[in-house]
Amino acid sequence: MAVNLLFVTSNASKVREAKHALGPNWKVTHKNLDVPEVKTESMEETIQRKAETAFSLVKKPVLVEDTGFFLDAYPNFPGTYTKFCIKRIGLDGFLKLLEGKNRQAGFETWLGYHDGQNVRTFTGSVKGSVADKPRGKAAEKLPYDLIFIPQGEKRTYAEMPLAEKQETSHRAKAFAALKKAFP
Amino acid sequence: MAVNLLFVTSNASKVREAKHALGPNWKVTHKNLDVPEVKTESMEETIQRKAETAFSLVKKPVLVEDTGFFLDAYPNFPGTYTKFCIKRIGLDGFLKLLEGKNRQAGFETWLGYHDGQNVRTFTGSVKGSVADKPRGKAAEKLPYDLIFIPQGEKRTYAEMPLAEKQETSHRAKAFAALKKAFP
Repeated sequence: MAVNLLFVTSNASKVREAKHALGPNWKVTHKNLDVPEVKTESMEETIQRKAETAFSLVKKPVLVEDTGFFLDAYPNFPGTYTKFCIKRIGLDGFLKLLEGKNRQAGFETWLGYHDGQNVRTFTGSVKGSVADKPRGKAAEKLPYDLIFIPQGEKRTYAEMPLAEKQETSHRAKAFAALKKAFP
Repeated sequence: MAVNLLFVTSNASKVREAKHALGPNWKVTHKNLDVPEVKTESMEETIQRKAETAFSLVKKPVLVEDTGFFLDAYPNFPGTYTKFCIKRIGLDGFLKLLEGKNRQAGFETWLGYHDGQNVRTFTGSVKGSVADKPRGKAAEKLPYDLIFIPQGEKRTYAEMPLAEKQETSHRAKAFAALKKAFP
C-alpha cells in the first residue's frame, strides 16, 4: 500500500533523498517550513519534540527529520547542534578542530512521524572519517557531505552520485526503517 | 529599598557574583534548578523565554541569567551555545579553533526578571582577547575565565580576585543595570 507522507523541512535536499529512498509507491509532499527545535542533547528526544511541534503547526500527520554529525575526537559534538555549528564555524572550523586528532566521525539521522496521536521514531547511522579538506559538490544544505568519507570508501559523500550515497547513507537507512514499519 | 531576588540557576558561582554586585541591601536567594532553555540565536530572546519557563516552574517572581561567549573569528559562536560547546570541545577545542586567527573575544550577560506579569531584561558586556593557554584558577562552572583577558589587562579573569574581576565584568555590569532599574 502506498503511503502519503507530509515531510516538514526547510531542506529540499532531504526531500530528494527521502523520495529516492522510499521509491515510486510513496507519495512524499514537501511542506517547506523550518520547524522550531527545542534542543536537547539527545537526538531521540529532540526529534520527538520536533514532531510534536510540527504537528501542532500543521495539524495533520507529519514527518520530520534531524541529522546529527558526530566527531569521535569530541564526543557528542556537534550532535544536536550540527546545523548551528556549520553556520558558525564552517567546515574550516571543523577541519581545524581535527588537526592532529582522531578523524573518525559518523552521522545519525532521526525521523519522527506524528500520526495525530503518537510519535514513532526511526533512525539510521553510518560511520566513517573526515577528509583533510572539502571534496566534491554537495547538495544544497548538506555541507558535511564535502568532508565525510563513509567506511570502506575513498570518496566523500559529495564525490558520489546520489544513488551510490544512498546505498549506505544514514538517511537512506532511516527511511528504510520507516518503510519497513508501515503496512 | 532592599529587594528580594529569587535567582534560579544551577551555577552557584553566578549567585556569588550576583551578591557581590548587588551589595548587602539585596537579599538574593538561590533556587538551584537548571532551567530548560529554548535556544535561539538571540541572547535576548533566549533569556526572555528562559524567564518565562522559570516563572512557570517556580510560580513566583524569578531572576534568570545567561552568559554568552563570543569569538570575533567565528561570529556568534559559541553565543547562546556557550555551555554546550565548553562541555563538548573544551578549552582545548577553543584554543585550536583560534590558532592563527583573530583572538578578540567578548562576554555578554543577560538577565531576565519575571515579575509575575512581564519580563524585564538587563545586559552587560565586556571585550577582550583569548589567552594562548588556560591561566589561573576559575570559579566552578566559569571555565572561560581561564582563557579570557579583559581589555587593558594582562591577566585572565581566573587570575584576578573576584573583587577586581567585578570592577569590569559583563555580569557585574548586567547586575548594575538591574540595580539601577529597581526603585
